[in-house]
Amino acid sequence: MTAQADAIWALLSAVREQQPLVHNITNFVVMNNTANALLAVGASPAMIHSSDEVEDFVAVSQALVVNIGTLYSEQIAACKLAALRARAAGVPWILDPVGAGATPYRRAAASALAGLHPTAVRGNGSEILALAERTQAAGQGRGVDSLHAPETAVEAARRLAADSQTAVAITGAVDYVTDGHRVAAIENGHSLMARVTGMGCSATAVIGAFLGVERDAFAATVAGLAVFGVAGEIAAQRA
Amino acid sequence: MTAQADAIWALLSAVREQQPLVHNITNFVVMNNTANALLAVGASPAMIHSSDEVEDFVAVSQALVVNIGTLYSEQIAACKLAALRARAAGVPWILDPVGAGATPYRRAAASALAGLHPTAVRGNGSEILALAERTQAAGQGRGVDSLHAPETAVEAARRLAADSQTAVAITGAVDYVTDGHRVAAIENGHSLMARVTGMGCSATAVIGAFLGVERDAFAATVAGLAVFGVAGEIAAQRA
Amino acid sequence: MTAQADAIWALLSAVREQQPLVHNITNFVVMNNTANALLAVGASPAMIHSSDEVEDFVAVSQALVVNIGTLYSEQIAACKLAALRARAAGVPWILDPVGAGATPYRRAAASALAGLHPTAVRGNGSEILALAERTQAAGQGRGVDSLHAPETAVEAARRLAADSQTAVAITGAVDYVTDGHRVAAIENGHSLMARVTGMGCSATAVIGAFLGVERDAFAATVAGLAVFGVAGEIAAQRA
Repeated sequence: MTAQADAIWALLSAVREQQPLVHNITNFVVMNNTANALLAVGASPAMIHSSDEVEDFVAVSQALVVNIGTLYSEQIAACKLAALRARAAGVPWILDPVGAGATPYRRAAASALAGLHPTAVRGNGSEILALAERTQAAGQGRGVDSLHAPETAVEAARRLAADSQTAVAITGAVDYVTDGHRVAAIENGHSLMARVTGMGCSATAVIGAFLGVERDAFAATVAGLAVFGVAGEIAAQRA
Repeated sequence: MTAQADAIWALLSAVREQQPLVHNITNFVVMNNTANALLAVGASPAMIHSSDEVEDFVAVSQALVVNIGTLYSEQIAACKLAALRARAAGVPWILDPVGAGATPYRRAAASALAGLHPTAVRGNGSEILALAERTQAAGQGRGVDSLHAPETAVEAARRLAADSQTAVAITGAVDYVTDGHRVAAIENGHSLMARVTGMGCSATAVIGAFLGVERDAFAATVAGLAVFGVAGEIAAQRA
Repeated sequence: MTAQADAIWALLSAVREQQPLVHNITNFVVMNNTANALLAVGASPAMIHSSDEVEDFVAVSQALVVNIGTLYSEQIAACKLAALRARAAGVPWILDPVGAGATPYRRAAASALAGLHPTAVRGNGSEILALAERTQAAGQGRGVDSLHAPETAVEAARRLAADSQTAVAITGAVDYVTDGHRVAAIENGHSLMARVTGMGCSATAVIGAFLGVERDAFAATVAGLAVFGVAGEIAAQRA
């Protein structure tokens, strides 16, 4: 095995051993898949979204996942409270800006959350462009689907990562991860994965589990995507 | 192939080619299945339900699906806003009046939405009777299940369609579609489909995808149900 | 067959014949699985959670299932209204206090609902300890997962059952059911079931279906868990 494969394997072993508690505030379409994806890698998932308890819960979690797929006003408030408390408590958190460029409301919510210092961000090409460019025109996708190949968003992702001190992942046919300095390309995964809903959301949650055991956000994000892609290849071969 | 099979095949090809963006405001039980059913026929699904963005989103969509399965007051408002904007923007929309006769609240919500000029309506026998008769006694089902065979609701559906200038579909062992003048019966599908939750809701969403590519609501509804029924037969044979 | 197996079989037959309408106010992660689990045992599921209609709906149902997995303030109100109306109308109801010890908010909600005279309660070891002990320290799990083996909660469950005149089930590697006097241990099920999300929630819903056909809450709870465990064994053998 290469040194990189060794590192990924070590992190997967750490997830299985430490079983990080991963707090998810996510969308209604993928809650079930996301919980099962987290159980599959060995993490302990919880879906907790009320403003009345997210701060208490995130403080005892090892990672927080924030996904705006089916956002509404109370949920944005809960996401902000959880993100702020995560930051204060030293709990890593990842943002999935689903459909960030699709409506003004969604663009504003995604930008506001991106401003709260996420440890990592994962999106498709259009979503990352919408977040990075912060203009109404940038990164308009087709609903929640990307109209931009991951490659076209790498430079914007690099700037976003450098400006925000965040690891940024762009997923698609090839996945890219950058912390503003380093850029990694990950080429596994299977094209069938685009034909099932919620794959990106599950990838984000799995990265969350890896952030729960590894302080280097770049390394954790690369490992999470690599493991998710291999799992997808195995599932596609079985289907 | 018959002329009708040719027409259905042409519409399915149009869905696959145009990949209509289908905006869903639907219930929490079936969101995942519905998204996957839309992906399977080649459409691009999005689940967007906040009153803060439904008007913006429906205006760039090719079709809207409104489903009241797990309704609550904010959602009714969002459905109304989206339906009005869809109508104004010339975007076709379909109503799924889940459990329309089950409670006074649900009956009122279904009636109010049916009054906003849906392009099509799909329900089981009890739901269509509840909508068409608009009396407290009519169309009481067993929760969200039908107590009325589709056949018993055809005449009510025909009147509802004629009065509302809407295509109305009643699904069950045999499916019926009417625009107030024409009535089509569709006999495919599989009895196993009644033993899995959310089949009717997925059928409604698939009709939505066909409305997104075909202006003749009757033809789109017949094609959507025919394709959904064949898919169900194939899945049942594999199970 | 033993007398107990005979009794369980008779109750399963009653569920299949009477097809009890089971009203669920449950969490967003498991709504789909729960509906399918209820359909699989022969019940008729409905997911209805708005305060505007839960009282009307529960009054025509044969059982109510209340699950606080993804609770929020409006849902707690709806659960309370539904539970009170169920009690008044003689409709049995079961409480699933998901993650009862995880946050003060969740602990308070679970306790308040437990005080509204559920016919049965099902939880894991940590949840039952949190409910029974009613101190901040008791029953802290790991998010929604148990840190307490079922065995360690049996005495607390017995007291809770006796004090509340409720059947209490603790599920885990072995399941226990008590009405404060009798204690039954159920040893079927499969360890794979812990690796899929929502198994406990589905077990609660299936018990709900059995409560809908059997007045003896202890017998209904034992039968529901036995049937659910056998179904899990069959599914695991196929996987």
